[in-house]
Amino acid sequence: MDVRTIAQIARDSSVIIAAATTEQKNAALEAMTYKVAFQRREILHANEADAAEATSEGLPPNMVDRLRFGEKKIDARARCLSKIEALPDPVGQAYSVERRPNGLEIARVRVPLGVILMIYEARPHVTVNAGALCLKSGNAAILRGGSEAKRCNAVLGNLWRESLTEAGLPPEAIQVISGSHEHIDELLHQDEYIDLVIPRGGKALIERVSERSRIPVIKHFAGICHVYLDQGADIDKGIKIALDSKCLMPEVCNAMETLLVCETISRELPRIADAFHRCGVRIKGCEKTRALTPEVEPATEEDWRTEHLDAILSVRVVSDVDEAIEHINRYGSHHTDAIVTDSDSRAREFVRRVDSAVVLVNASTMFCDGESLGMGAEIGISTDKLHARGPMGLEELTSYKFVIRGDGNVMGDQIWTHP
Amino acid sequence: MDVRTIAQIARDSSVIIAAATTEQKNAALEAMTYKVAFQRREILHANEADAAEATSEGLPPNMVDRLRFGEKKIDARARCLSKIEALPDPVGQAYSVERRPNGLEIARVRVPLGVILMIYEARPHVTVNAGALCLKSGNAAILRGGSEAKRCNAVLGNLWRESLTEAGLPPEAIQVISGSHEHIDELLHQDEYIDLVIPRGGKALIERVSERSRIPVIKHFAGICHVYLDQGADIDKGIKIALDSKCLMPEVCNAMETLLVCETISRELPRIADAFHRCGVRIKGCEKTRALTPEVEPATEEDWRTEHLDAILSVRVVSDVDEAIEHINRYGSHHTDAIVTDSDSRAREFVRRVDSAVVLVNASTMFCDGESLGMGAEIGISTDKLHARGPMGLEELTSYKFVIRGDGNVMGDQIWTHP
Repeated sequence: MDVRTIAQIARDSSVIIAAATTEQKNAALEAMTYKVAFQRREILHANEADAAEATSEGLPPNMVDRLRFGEKKIDARARCLSKIEALPDPVGQAYSVERRPNGLEIARVRVPLGVILMIYEARPHVTVNAGALCLKSGNAAILRGGSEAKRCNAVLGNLWRESLTEAGLPPEAIQVISGSHEHIDELLHQDEYIDLVIPRGGKALIERVSERSRIPVIKHFAGICHVYLDQGADIDKGIKIALDSKCLMPEVCNAMETLLVCETISRELPRIADAFHRCGVRIKGCEKTRALTPEVEPATEEDWRTEHLDAILSVRVVSDVDEAIEHINRYGSHHTDAIVTDSDSRAREFVRRVDSAVVLVNASTMFCDGESLGMGAEIGISTDKLHARGPMGLEELTSYKFVIRGDGNVMGDQIWTHP
Repeated sequence: MDVRTIAQIARDSSVIIAAATTEQKNAALEAMTYKVAFQRREILHANEADAAEATSEGLPPNMVDRLRFGEKKIDARARCLSKIEALPDPVGQAYSVERRPNGLEIARVRVPLGVILMIYEARPHVTVNAGALCLKSGNAAILRGGSEAKRCNAVLGNLWRESLTEAGLPPEAIQVISGSHEHIDELLHQDEYIDLVIPRGGKALIERVSERSRIPVIKHFAGICHVYLDQGADIDKGIKIALDSKCLMPEVCNAMETLLVCETISRELPRIADAFHRCGVRIKGCEKTRALTPEVEPATEEDWRTEHLDAILSVRVVSDVDEAIEHINRYGSHHTDAIVTDSDSRAREFVRRVDSAVVLVNASTMFCDGESLGMGAEIGISTDKLHARGPMGLEELTSYKFVIRGDGNVMGDQIWTHP
């Protein structure tokens, strides 16, 4: 199918999906939950073929890990579909309801955005999450996954078509497509039919999309995320949070890349380094770090700006919370940053001055995640400030209209005399 | 000053204005209120010189009207500045506060966007409103008004500088600039320093800005606004709302351009036409309208798509609310549309299906206005769906960050054993 037709069909479907009832949308989500759970052999088989090809083509092991969609991840997707089904339907929700002194009743009512295009790499779970979130929020979706996950995405795309059809909704409301870079460029010119582009993947992909798109883009750039261990912090709590932030899923964007340690507790560095070494993490440290733990490699200026997405950690000793904040705002990517502290005032200072989408106090950076924030899942983590910032769920995929109800109200009352 | 320097200075000021206290920002707003009220002679004098030049250069009278800034409009601006001063400071406001089952406390906290560039034509009151809204929401502003209002804008720009200085804030937080189209193009490339562009003016201006900008744009397109008089509607109420929507300020974007009348009440057309004629409005009608009021001119297909911004009204007879909704979604500009009806069910249908930023029931389209909606003023009326739709006030000039507070929470608790 040519690109313009794909976009037109999405637009036509968006009108129907925008008017669909909550029951219809939930029926499609329920159908998809069962299909993902019970047709998992087909998904696993396709995913194994994708991973085998990626390995044989020399994709780095951490990237192949991102691609893998095993039993546990399938269970997690089925749970996530159920959670999204259980969430309230955002479409038609009224908020900021107010009666004005002149008697007018004013409300904002949530409406779908229209057609959403996602362009992403690896991680086939996006095909499930993004489809589910777009559907529940009344939007049509065009999902263009990476070629490295093509078999798995094709299976998931068929399951979406079947689920939508069974619920009496247009199967084209979620189109899972493949296609060359030239196809993408052409898609990015369909601003007549597509309302929003969300690119997820490496920096090159996102820059390419932003530069070529005539459609508004919400960017999802890299996460160079920090944990700062403040003076007087409980060191056991600090190590636990730092380990979780780095080691649970080193390949995700909200994994910690740099640990900042306050000088006053730097004597704990050998213990900290030991904990990471036991988890198989390679450490690159600043001079002060190396003075206390001579076995670690030296860090360069470049390391502070690097998203490893792997079991490599940069460590720097800073003099106080001010220097930590400066480091984060200078070298970080305004994504997700945490402080471990016992001081309320320094926590407030950190929260106020760190210019990031998600700022955490005494909690792991792993919680920057739609599921943890009660969104069911997230379609991505925006590093933009317009429209949506941080994890994007159902509400972030809607717009609103003002609805004003009066009883014959006019602004220039006195002047309208008529026969 | 060169364009890059203007943008850099704005960025530097934005950091200070983002951290300014509510008291400081209010002090600057109060100073500006007094200056606008008590230095009005200077403003009026400059505005008269602008209007005289515009008239001598052949600007159409309705455009010269938009440019005029008389005593009443100055009083209104002073009141509006006071209202914005009295509004709560959005910066630092926490909302969607929630405690999750895992004990995490999650909030969104409003933060300024950064630097906002406004490019607008005529109407010098934008220089007051936009400056005030950007300031109160903690953003730095670059205001580039039209050359036809250059004298008045220069006076207002000086008053802003003085007001900011008196409040101990950087005078460059609101820069009122002039400059050629080439300057604008260069400004639109300063995406390193500027976070948002809001163009307000004719279609050509907005399209030019959208095409050339590397900075995200929120578009403020024309208002082809409708009032629909439903079957069984109270005709006196209907005429009052229609007259107010058309005649109070024909030159504004939310003024009615087309009146739709249900066939079942079309016998009232002579009375309706008479009321508009008494207010000096020229009517262009469909064939059915002309059958009942032969004195009106014939309307063409083009009239349904035209924003006159003048005392010209298109009138069309439609068979029912469905045809009214179809007409509005097809010919309108998704801006502001109203129904006058006694039927709850048809009101709901109209509200649900009319795809416009503002939908009114039994109220004049004049209420699509930041002041009426409790925003103090609006920086513009967005015809986009992303980030903000309809009148934009303080909240719409902010973004947010997620703030997550825990007590040592980690996601993968069981696995972090360490010495």
